[in-house]
Amino acid sequence: MKIMVLGGDGYLGWPTACYLSKRGHKILSIDNFSKKQIENENGVSSILSTLTIQDKIKKWNENNSNKINFEICDLLNHRSIYSKLKEFKPDAIVHYAEQPSAPYSMKDRSSAYFTQMNNVMGNLNLLFGIKKYCPEAHLVKLGTMGEYGTPNIDIEEGWLNVNHNGRTDKLLFPKKPGSFYHLSKVHDTNNIEFACRLWNLRCTDLNQGVVYGCETDELEEYPDEMGVSFHYDDIFGTVINRFVSQAVTNKKLTVYGKGLQKRAFLNINDTLRCIELSINNPANIGEFRVFNQYTETFSINDLAEIVKSSSKDLGNEVEIVNLENPRLEQAEHYYNPKNSGLISLGLKPILFEKILAKKMIEKLEKYSKEIDRSKFLPSLKWKN
Amino acid sequence: MKIMVLGGDGYLGWPTACYLSKRGHKILSIDNFSKKQIENENGVSSILSTLTIQDKIKKWNENNSNKINFEICDLLNHRSIYSKLKEFKPDAIVHYAEQPSAPYSMKDRSSAYFTQMNNVMGNLNLLFGIKKYCPEAHLVKLGTMGEYGTPNIDIEEGWLNVNHNGRTDKLLFPKKPGSFYHLSKVHDTNNIEFACRLWNLRCTDLNQGVVYGCETDELEEYPDEMGVSFHYDDIFGTVINRFVSQAVTNKKLTVYGKGLQKRAFLNINDTLRCIELSINNPANIGEFRVFNQYTETFSINDLAEIVKSSSKDLGNEVEIVNLENPRLEQAEHYYNPKNSGLISLGLKPILFEKILAKKMIEKLEKYSKEIDRSKFLPSLKWKN
Repeated sequence: MKIMVLGGDGYLGWPTACYLSKRGHKILSIDNFSKKQIENENGVSSILSTLTIQDKIKKWNENNSNKINFEICDLLNHRSIYSKLKEFKPDAIVHYAEQPSAPYSMKDRSSAYFTQMNNVMGNLNLLFGIKKYCPEAHLVKLGTMGEYGTPNIDIEEGWLNVNHNGRTDKLLFPKKPGSFYHLSKVHDTNNIEFACRLWNLRCTDLNQGVVYGCETDELEEYPDEMGVSFHYDDIFGTVINRFVSQAVTNKKLTVYGKGLQKRAFLNINDTLRCIELSINNPANIGEFRVFNQYTETFSINDLAEIVKSSSKDLGNEVEIVNLENPRLEQAEHYYNPKNSGLISLGLKPILFEKILAKKMIEKLEKYSKEIDRSKFLPSLKWKN
Repeated sequence: MKIMVLGGDGYLGWPTACYLSKRGHKILSIDNFSKKQIENENGVSSILSTLTIQDKIKKWNENNSNKINFEICDLLNHRSIYSKLKEFKPDAIVHYAEQPSAPYSMKDRSSAYFTQMNNVMGNLNLLFGIKKYCPEAHLVKLGTMGEYGTPNIDIEEGWLNVNHNGRTDKLLFPKKPGSFYHLSKVHDTNNIEFACRLWNLRCTDLNQGVVYGCETDELEEYPDEMGVSFHYDDIFGTVINRFVSQAVTNKKLTVYGKGLQKRAFLNINDTLRCIELSINNPANIGEFRVFNQYTETFSINDLAEIVKSSSKDLGNEVEIVNLENPRLEQAEHYYNPKNSGLISLGLKPILFEKILAKKMIEKLEKYSKEIDRSKFLPSLKWKN
């Protein structure tokens, strides 16, 4: 299959290209390097993955028969994405090409504006390009579980059968996002659903939980410099990745607020499997299909305890510290999202248990000197 | 009260400034003339209202003690709107400054992109400006009844008490918009609701029906060149305004599809009254309040029959012609929107009855030679 990976330089874009290349697909990967730009502006960088995307792909292609092709492309430049779609004619498009940090989107006007501009307007150009050049291509779009917020009702997969005053309709699930980043994903959802309804495009919108992990099966045999772009900082570092990084450095796991807030999580290898399952079981023509792409829910305290206990087993005592919550989050809430869609397609979840936490700790211990512990604490507040 | 009117050169912005000036408020009106630019690009223009906004305001100010001030300002230039908010320090902001045409937004990629860029990104800049310079100002934002689409359930005012699997929550009403323009208003709704929740801003979001009318009480005593910007074309002309214009020219009222689709309507004088009621009864600090701003629902056939019958009474036989529907609309559907919020604040609806239709016909008959009947037919199709 011909598959485009948009956002191919990112934490998930690069391993996705490798995963799909390994399985015989022809890959065109594109990126505008806007995440690298935000890293530069904020003085943060990933550990592992220190090679440029160009060099990583070069090494990958030396060892694999299915070559990955990489091109620079910004979705805000519609002529650029149009020309890629026209030439490559993808069967599927995996769309990660969005500013991915909620804290960054809350920094100030400029960062909120950039986030919604890059994500919403870029996605709009993409939709027009698909309609024009490859209307049957299957768009596999990354959304986020954060679009839903934490409503007091069960979270269904994208759609809700509403009963109201004795009448019923199936409508998009009402959202309550908690940042300008999460809002950008809600706007995308609404634009894409309309494009499917209007032009008979086909889309699978994957409302993804918080991804964790520092390696994928396909990249395990390569040196770490070829690996995933692993962040532990307050801008791009997700909570499990940060806790493990704290465990191997200053031994303090920083929990925002009381730590009772619950979220949905999945392992990075499961992300890749979910993408593959979506591609192999495409949405129908005209269908806007939504899956909640996560495997487990945890409170933040649950996660801190797993990392603390795993560290202890390895001979390291770590402390759990509660900070004032910099975010706009409910301290305690109901949380019951559904995720049967991908499970029914065959997903076998990898669980975040101590054995896995220990493996992450052992890998990151090799990098403890490269981790800048001054980057752990939240530098950006939602109500700034 | 100090009131800013954003989009002050438009069909509603200009009469709103006059209405509020007449009632003793200090008005700063701003516009970026983007609607005029779209008129130019598409070769359409309004009848009545032939003076520039600058000349209209000059004449208004010669006859009224409460002066209207006008400045050029584009919300996409955040420094420009910031400086206006900082200097004027409004108590209320009436926000019409959005590309208002659904058909235009469906013309092509460029027009869809402009619509969402101008509306969503401009509104985002405005929110940051309010937060920074006048966080207690009451934002009176114009949304549209078209955000809801035509769901098979009763349409509440912005929020829905959802019962699901034995649990309940109050969530934003799920939307099903039918154009990139309507989507832009949904995106605005989501961004503003978050700003109220996050920063304790206060907003009344007015989901307005289709406005009709060719004069307002405040402008009646002035020459028509001072009047409202009246459009009959397929880009900016709303259905009642177009039907009346067709009745006085080529005598053919063009109904899209079977004409059974129902919509919500209100008279332009009621728009002004609703704005005033909202301003005089502001949302609370932190509240995102939604009113459905319309007075009556009609099928398109109902409207055509009223105009046809009114014409007949005046001695003119007109014909109703059904065209293929250029839009993405349900041909037949349930439609039961609520509008008790503004009624309970004291709105006394003006009804679209034959006496009113005849008054419009008589006024427009004076302009029948200036109406370009080649502009009636839909030039833009949703599925282009």
